[in-house]
Amino acid sequence: MKNDKITVGLLGAGRIGQEHAKNLAAFPQVEVAVVCDPRIEAAEAIRPLVRAREVTAFPEQVVSRNDVDAVVICTPTDTHAALIEAAAETGKAIFCEKPVALDLTRTQQALATVAKKGVAFQIGFQRRFDSGYAEAKRRVVAGVLGRLDQFRTVGRDPAPPPKEYLAKSGGLFLDQTIHEFDIARFLMGDVTEVNAWGAVRFHPDASEFGDIDTATTLLRFASGALGVVENSRRAVYGYDMVTEVFGENGKLVVQAEPKTPLRHYHRDGYKLDHYHFFMDRFGPAFRAELQAFFDSVANGTPPSPGPVDALESLRIAIAATRSLKENRAVKLTEI
Amino acid sequence: MKNDKITVGLLGAGRIGQEHAKNLAAFPQVEVAVVCDPRIEAAEAIRPLVRAREVTAFPEQVVSRNDVDAVVICTPTDTHAALIEAAAETGKAIFCEKPVALDLTRTQQALATVAKKGVAFQIGFQRRFDSGYAEAKRRVVAGVLGRLDQFRTVGRDPAPPPKEYLAKSGGLFLDQTIHEFDIARFLMGDVTEVNAWGAVRFHPDASEFGDIDTATTLLRFASGALGVVENSRRAVYGYDMVTEVFGENGKLVVQAEPKTPLRHYHRDGYKLDHYHFFMDRFGPAFRAELQAFFDSVANGTPPSPGPVDALESLRIAIAATRSLKENRAVKLTEI
Amino acid sequence: MKNDKITVGLLGAGRIGQEHAKNLAAFPQVEVAVVCDPRIEAAEAIRPLVRAREVTAFPEQVVSRNDVDAVVICTPTDTHAALIEAAAETGKAIFCEKPVALDLTRTQQALATVAKKGVAFQIGFQRRFDSGYAEAKRRVVAGVLGRLDQFRTVGRDPAPPPKEYLAKSGGLFLDQTIHEFDIARFLMGDVTEVNAWGAVRFHPDASEFGDIDTATTLLRFASGALGVVENSRRAVYGYDMVTEVFGENGKLVVQAEPKTPLRHYHRDGYKLDHYHFFMDRFGPAFRAELQAFFDSVANGTPPSPGPVDALESLRIAIAATRSLKENRAVKLTEI
Amino acid sequence: MKNDKITVGLLGAGRIGQEHAKNLAAFPQVEVAVVCDPRIEAAEAIRPLVRAREVTAFPEQVVSRNDVDAVVICTPTDTHAALIEAAAETGKAIFCEKPVALDLTRTQQALATVAKKGVAFQIGFQRRFDSGYAEAKRRVVAGVLGRLDQFRTVGRDPAPPPKEYLAKSGGLFLDQTIHEFDIARFLMGDVTEVNAWGAVRFHPDASEFGDIDTATTLLRFASGALGVVENSRRAVYGYDMVTEVFGENGKLVVQAEPKTPLRHYHRDGYKLDHYHFFMDRFGPAFRAELQAFFDSVANGTPPSPGPVDALESLRIAIAATRSLKENRAVKLTEI
Repeated sequence: MKNDKITVGLLGAGRIGQEHAKNLAAFPQVEVAVVCDPRIEAAEAIRPLVRAREVTAFPEQVVSRNDVDAVVICTPTDTHAALIEAAAETGKAIFCEKPVALDLTRTQQALATVAKKGVAFQIGFQRRFDSGYAEAKRRVVAGVLGRLDQFRTVGRDPAPPPKEYLAKSGGLFLDQTIHEFDIARFLMGDVTEVNAWGAVRFHPDASEFGDIDTATTLLRFASGALGVVENSRRAVYGYDMVTEVFGENGKLVVQAEPKTPLRHYHRDGYKLDHYHFFMDRFGPAFRAELQAFFDSVANGTPPSPGPVDALESLRIAIAATRSLKENRAVKLTEI
Repeated sequence: MKNDKITVGLLGAGRIGQEHAKNLAAFPQVEVAVVCDPRIEAAEAIRPLVRAREVTAFPEQVVSRNDVDAVVICTPTDTHAALIEAAAETGKAIFCEKPVALDLTRTQQALATVAKKGVAFQIGFQRRFDSGYAEAKRRVVAGVLGRLDQFRTVGRDPAPPPKEYLAKSGGLFLDQTIHEFDIARFLMGDVTEVNAWGAVRFHPDASEFGDIDTATTLLRFASGALGVVENSRRAVYGYDMVTEVFGENGKLVVQAEPKTPLRHYHRDGYKLDHYHFFMDRFGPAFRAELQAFFDSVANGTPPSPGPVDALESLRIAIAATRSLKENRAVKLTEI
Repeated sequence: MKNDKITVGLLGAGRIGQEHAKNLAAFPQVEVAVVCDPRIEAAEAIRPLVRAREVTAFPEQVVSRNDVDAVVICTPTDTHAALIEAAAETGKAIFCEKPVALDLTRTQQALATVAKKGVAFQIGFQRRFDSGYAEAKRRVVAGVLGRLDQFRTVGRDPAPPPKEYLAKSGGLFLDQTIHEFDIARFLMGDVTEVNAWGAVRFHPDASEFGDIDTATTLLRFASGALGVVENSRRAVYGYDMVTEVFGENGKLVVQAEPKTPLRHYHRDGYKLDHYHFFMDRFGPAFRAELQAFFDSVANGTPPSPGPVDALESLRIAIAATRSLKENRAVKLTEI
Repeated sequence: MKNDKITVGLLGAGRIGQEHAKNLAAFPQVEVAVVCDPRIEAAEAIRPLVRAREVTAFPEQVVSRNDVDAVVICTPTDTHAALIEAAAETGKAIFCEKPVALDLTRTQQALATVAKKGVAFQIGFQRRFDSGYAEAKRRVVAGVLGRLDQFRTVGRDPAPPPKEYLAKSGGLFLDQTIHEFDIARFLMGDVTEVNAWGAVRFHPDASEFGDIDTATTLLRFASGALGVVENSRRAVYGYDMVTEVFGENGKLVVQAEPKTPLRHYHRDGYKLDHYHFFMDRFGPAFRAELQAFFDSVANGTPPSPGPVDALESLRIAIAATRSLKENRAVKLTEI
């Protein structure tokens, strides 16, 4: 790092890339050298915000540069593994949006390169950095709940993704539930068995790809505790994310309180608003995860969530997909 | 009914019998003729409250009397079926605490007698009469949520029952979860398949009887919707009962707000209290269910929840028990 | 009391009389001898509920009877003082709806008779028996908040009373705010000074009687603490009652949580309902205040709130009325 | 503005200056030319964050520069007026923390210069930009509440300021309550009369300066509506800020929900945390107010809150101070 600054290449200027750009702009220890997107005008649009010196349409030009210390990968999923490997080869610290890849082998390959090169690697499970989840984790670790016995989380998106996205998503468990599986591991530890039930309730596109739009999935944890994850691709009231950890001494509920601190009392009672999507619910968490990544890079400590977290959440998602297909409980040891 | 009053025999003067007695005392259209309990002093203790003319230790003396229009059965579970049959034979309206019996055959026998004699029969699923559940039902029936897609309920008791109770309870699903199964049917319709996972986490007595203290159970509804029920025999914070119905146009959450309308702001934030047990959470519901029963008796309309509800919740509980034992999904058609 | 029962005369079969009747019916230690209302059909309507032996149109016949131990006075305000005196003369325990009278002299006369005859006397400030207010009081008395510094309460009715009621009400402070003044005293101790601002915002009838429909009133307590009461005769969302006690170590907020334990998530957020009026908000408190009265009668202890509470809340209300009229702060020593 | 950027001088690198610096760093349209603080090391500490070209100890050097388009004034109150005048004379846009000055004459002088020079001027009432207050304003303006009748706000700081701060603060009304007075005007319109009651309850330093630590203040609005403001210099549970606007069709409550979206259920109920101070409660509002200021500068529209708001809130605070001293209601026309 020159001048005590971390020089960064931002790969991908789509929705998530733009979110990360806002935060990169505000970190004094970070200097964005280049923004990359094949749609060069998207890269240009971000450029002034992050005060980038250059833009490019070619990610390989970014990962091969010597004057870049770290990359933030926000490109489409099917490009992640190759970019991770190229960046690792040139010794860059890597922040990558989830998932590394949609299949286990490709994921393991890419992470093997990361391990071999010993570069810092962080996967984009931003929820871990939300003040509610982070505080829940601290209390769990501090033993406030004692033995943990049950876990429940719900993950509902406001609306299904576009058809083209769905086609390449890997299915609901790999695309959406993988976030819930990560939070389950974060708060409860390793998962040993899953039993997934799913259905197509409202979204014909899902059927077309052999996918589902609704799922309720049992989890068994290595500790013996039981869990459940509920998912839907559509919730008219917005983004639904409530997590409950139940244990010997009580329970913790991470619950999205109203987005706006306003209660409106009217003729029929009172009403509050609700978060619309993960971008407004987890805005501060996106900032905090990047901050943690750059702090790790600056301090030379391994970032978290790291390669194991990227891999394990994928294994659970694959097990859930198999459970649904084969209509039976699937042990993680099978994956 | 003489004098436009409904003459009632109260069978059982234990915890639930006492609760019902408080409410019976306040219904002007009800006259309690007799309170029955083998522990005659328990019956005597209730007598002044309900202004009963007599007490007796012998339930068969109550069910055979001609001057009693209706019985309220709060005796131990293993006596229910016989008392139902005897009361039906003499044409009495019957309110009975759940369950009718712990096995299907005995339940079906008793309910067959009820059907043959055409007497009014109501089973004690009081939650249906809670203002939150009742209003949720009204909105579901009115189509406010549109198509229903997911259901979740949690049922946690503050502490496990005594060992002797556990021995005769029929196991967690028949004893505790049966209430959740009824609420699932009440709000979502018939269940077609269950998959139950359970564990012994803290209560050695449960192991001794081949029982569990913790369970998470998948439900599939005839509509295709998915559900889950979480149970625990112990929750240090009190009685935990939250139900969520998720559908096309939104979701309804029946949630126990704080028991006392008081927020206490102190050095570390603020705190609220919580319901301790079903008796304080569902006090008004106990009153409302008896009121509904006597209204049905007075109007000559069939009470609800009735024989089908008593039977179906039992079938689900039996399926869940089998699912746990055989470690597989069980279809209701198997039961 | 004959037969260990307290024989009661219920005076007044209007809205509040009916509420008390429901509770009287459920107290096993109480026997309602007679219900009295000049509209004899109103008395008859209540009769079966309380299982009264008789009804009458003439209250003087009730207060003079020797076979009545206690009276519950729910008649119009202008009859209270005389009935209290008559009941006291014949040694009856007295529960009376607030206020004793609308002027200080008449109130003092009636309470002097109560004192001279040494009969039990309780005034109907039912809020003190609400679980929230009662628990707040316990914590204040236990010193949980330390020194008390500020107090705020709001009291808003859903809709103004009928014109004929308003004409005899004594004005907003004596009719409505007197409840807030009592709660202020209950939680904070004696009031020494008031400064009332009021306005007619929406209710022309109020103007006609020189009354107001909206008020915000400063209170100074003997302890030096400051307080404020907000009132309105109309709130479209229902009955508004929130009280806050702020002190050295924190604050307590008695807050009406939603009436129905149900959250409804819909397209624009989520909504909850609200209490409609004091009858649904304070139903259990009405029961508890009568229970406390009869417990006092049975135990021979002085009921609370008693004569001093009846008198002091009136003095504050009179001071507030004067403050508004004379547009200045008024010390309680002036009253 | 050169290069379409707004060149900014940041005056003051204390607590608020640091908060503004964080936000300045993230605005792509802003270039911070210079950071100024007499404690030059404080200015240096901020410099890398905002990527400032220079630092200086002398504010007059900043306000006289030609290459600075706008100043953000976060210096001690007694320097505000002179800096505003100097910046206005050289045509700079001005963002100034409240208040302009502690006396009316000096405030009017400085704002006269602003008016004469026609420069953009915004006063730092950041609460107006909080999502809750901003949405409340939108609904009020849209007429959702209809006629407004009552207003209440509470403002309590976690702990009194240091003695040296208190000495120069101008007293509780000018220092703390002025924020509440601004919010009152923002939501309800002009104030015509105040009546302030205050007390020293816990902070001897306040007495020393003839100041108070606790106040409850009546407001009368030009519309005829009534209001009240409660203040304390100390609240153990943190920063207390709840505002209620009550009107014809309902009420709006801006209420700080828990800071962390986490409910912790434990043996005695459940608990939530609370905001600690205005910096954590209003972090996003600080960002939004600067954003609004620079948007106004870029668009050539007058910023809001502007000179009138700076002046009027001061007049109310002066009226409240006089009301307390003279123990009477004070009309704003007197000030």
